[in-house]
Amino acid sequence: MVTASAVTGRETANVEAVRRMTAADPVLIDVRPARDVVPGMTERTVLTSGAPLPWQAYQGGQRDGIIGGVLYEGLAATPAEATAALSSGQVTLDGCHGYGCVGSLAGIYTASMPVFVVEDRDTGRRGFCNFFEGGSVKRLNYGCYDDEVRDNLRFVEREIAPFVGEAVRRAGGIPLKPLMRRALHMGDELHSRNTAATLLFGREIYQPLLDLARDDRDAAGRVISFLTDNEYSFLRLSMAAAKVMADAAHGVDGASVVTAMTFSGAEFAIRVSGLGDAWFRGPHGRIQARLFDGHTEDEITFMGGESPITETVGLGGFAQAAAFPLQSYQGGSAQLMVERNLAMYQITAAENPDFRIPFFDYRGTPTGIDIFRVIETGVLPLMDVGVPGTGGGQIGAGVLEAPISCFTAAREAYQARYG
Amino acid sequence: MVTASAVTGRETANVEAVRRMTAADPVLIDVRPARDVVPGMTERTVLTSGAPLPWQAYQGGQRDGIIGGVLYEGLAATPAEATAALSSGQVTLDGCHGYGCVGSLAGIYTASMPVFVVEDRDTGRRGFCNFFEGGSVKRLNYGCYDDEVRDNLRFVEREIAPFVGEAVRRAGGIPLKPLMRRALHMGDELHSRNTAATLLFGREIYQPLLDLARDDRDAAGRVISFLTDNEYSFLRLSMAAAKVMADAAHGVDGASVVTAMTFSGAEFAIRVSGLGDAWFRGPHGRIQARLFDGHTEDEITFMGGESPITETVGLGGFAQAAAFPLQSYQGGSAQLMVERNLAMYQITAAENPDFRIPFFDYRGTPTGIDIFRVIETGVLPLMDVGVPGTGGGQIGAGVLEAPISCFTAAREAYQARYG
Repeated sequence: MVTASAVTGRETANVEAVRRMTAADPVLIDVRPARDVVPGMTERTVLTSGAPLPWQAYQGGQRDGIIGGVLYEGLAATPAEATAALSSGQVTLDGCHGYGCVGSLAGIYTASMPVFVVEDRDTGRRGFCNFFEGGSVKRLNYGCYDDEVRDNLRFVEREIAPFVGEAVRRAGGIPLKPLMRRALHMGDELHSRNTAATLLFGREIYQPLLDLARDDRDAAGRVISFLTDNEYSFLRLSMAAAKVMADAAHGVDGASVVTAMTFSGAEFAIRVSGLGDAWFRGPHGRIQARLFDGHTEDEITFMGGESPITETVGLGGFAQAAAFPLQSYQGGSAQLMVERNLAMYQITAAENPDFRIPFFDYRGTPTGIDIFRVIETGVLPLMDVGVPGTGGGQIGAGVLEAPISCFTAAREAYQARYG
Repeated sequence: MVTASAVTGRETANVEAVRRMTAADPVLIDVRPARDVVPGMTERTVLTSGAPLPWQAYQGGQRDGIIGGVLYEGLAATPAEATAALSSGQVTLDGCHGYGCVGSLAGIYTASMPVFVVEDRDTGRRGFCNFFEGGSVKRLNYGCYDDEVRDNLRFVEREIAPFVGEAVRRAGGIPLKPLMRRALHMGDELHSRNTAATLLFGREIYQPLLDLARDDRDAAGRVISFLTDNEYSFLRLSMAAAKVMADAAHGVDGASVVTAMTFSGAEFAIRVSGLGDAWFRGPHGRIQARLFDGHTEDEITFMGGESPITETVGLGGFAQAAAFPLQSYQGGSAQLMVERNLAMYQITAAENPDFRIPFFDYRGTPTGIDIFRVIETGVLPLMDVGVPGTGGGQIGAGVLEAPISCFTAAREAYQARYG
């Protein structure tokens, strides 16, 4: 039986967790190879999306992506050698979240890959995200690896990232929350739509790139094209910023607020503020997708994804009514987006003081998913996601519903711990 | 009595007028001093907002602005001399609209002022708009003129405009409609909110500015700041593009669609496609404003404005449901904006094929105000406007309702002409 004081204690703890989450002030301070900045990252580490699994449990595109990462890093010469190195433990395979990282789709991190370094001005905590691979359909994070994928990754590593880092340092760091706050007033929800945030970020980096253009006009032009031509570009920054915010809310004694939602190719999982580092795992959630022309539902596959860190902090599916344009991409209607967004208020502990929705007359986004509210209402967290296909590459976009079993498992653990 | 065939003829004509309006494809091709590009502009011409009036009829801030223009251009040394030159006709004073120009507020154009040159790729027709004067509260278009105003105008003329022109020419021209179309999906309605369009324009001009930065880094930095720091920046381009579109729709025999709405300090006026160059004049419309802190309603004044050319082509007040963020600036609520926007469909001849509103599931904006529908429904066109104060400068923003008498006057003329 739940007593009134237990509920009160939990609610107080949740208020504190959300307070920490929303007090976080993420600033992009640098771009560096993962080995130089990600704590615990070694030359022989490969990170991937989802609650950690033994190597043998990874499947499909995610497995292919992990092998691709080993090859890219030169830790093996062939897929067979890579598989052997992963099986034997010569290569350390682990989940991104434990390293302050978040993976897009398969989410492969290796030592040489550049990462955005985002630091919380409030606590000094850091979060990281690696780079968008460019416009090619074939990408490592969609489970592809060949010469083209390698060349694109190398291009980003050598021709883009160092100059972005230089510009960011010249700018003295770029605070991300003001850009995110504004982007929500410009049609973005900062998960599946980042059009405005990408432009706002471009404006921040123009001036330092003009300095750079004096010495190397081509590099400056290349960097600005890379950063602003693709409208998804800001997503990696949104993810790193959300990771910093979510981690800030983690570890509040008694709090039942979710601090991460993630999935591998095998399963969905959540982490809860007051429940330590345990992952509460379940099957994949239900997805309602709008597929690109020429694709069918039977091609839909799961190969991992940690971009739902954005929903964890009140963005993405929790801010759909800020992003009506998204309907042309992932389906639905404005009315449905309003209804879905309103439903999320039923399962959250607070309203975001920074992220606000103009259509709701600037009401704050629903923030801080409370596992108890999810179970009591039966309303499941919704995530705006890109949809990969079995043949590799993105085949559409849609809305993913978290599975209830992760929440019931977390509630059991909560009751076992707190009574 | 109106016969069925008369209505049919009118509707057919209106369809053609709106077809021409929406077929226009405005491209920013250059920036030049007005004297070099505006047909009919002489060294001794001053243009101002509103249907043309004799000099003696201009009053308040608009009168001060006109005098300021004469002084700025060196056509007189003192306000008294300027007044004499205007009275005697030594300086030609006329309305902007007759010259392919549109004025912001008092809307003063003189020969040396740089203008954006916007050309319709469909017809070769050109429209012009002069430059935003910068962030100072004191501006010529708000009826102020002193050393500070002069220095700001000179700065734009000498330190900004030539470089913008250079960048635009290097870019090979910048098509505006794609930017406008996208901005409507990013919270702009392109009259009182131009935040996204300004950023989108910045992205278009950034690469040529990098070239420029090799020779003159400071100029490139100055230009990008000028063009993108102020979020209203794109309005001048939106106005010039709308002017080109509206002029394309002008002169269709039998069409009862409005092709310009404008006001001076003295009166409101409209022009109608099938009624030649006549202006149908009336009193100022009713304004519902949200004033900046420290200002009161009795300070509200009219000193001219031609930015309602944007409403004429289906933007601004006709696209409020694309711009919910605007409520924080000009008051109201999301619900009110939806209702107002829906009302505009009652008085328009068509839905815009390019300008679409995500919240209305991408329905085209109401486009082509039909004077007969305005009279039949009693629904008055709404315009999103900045509000000037008697003390000079902007004191708020709001929604302006066009006066019915312009429409009844136009209907009389229509019936006199077409029976």
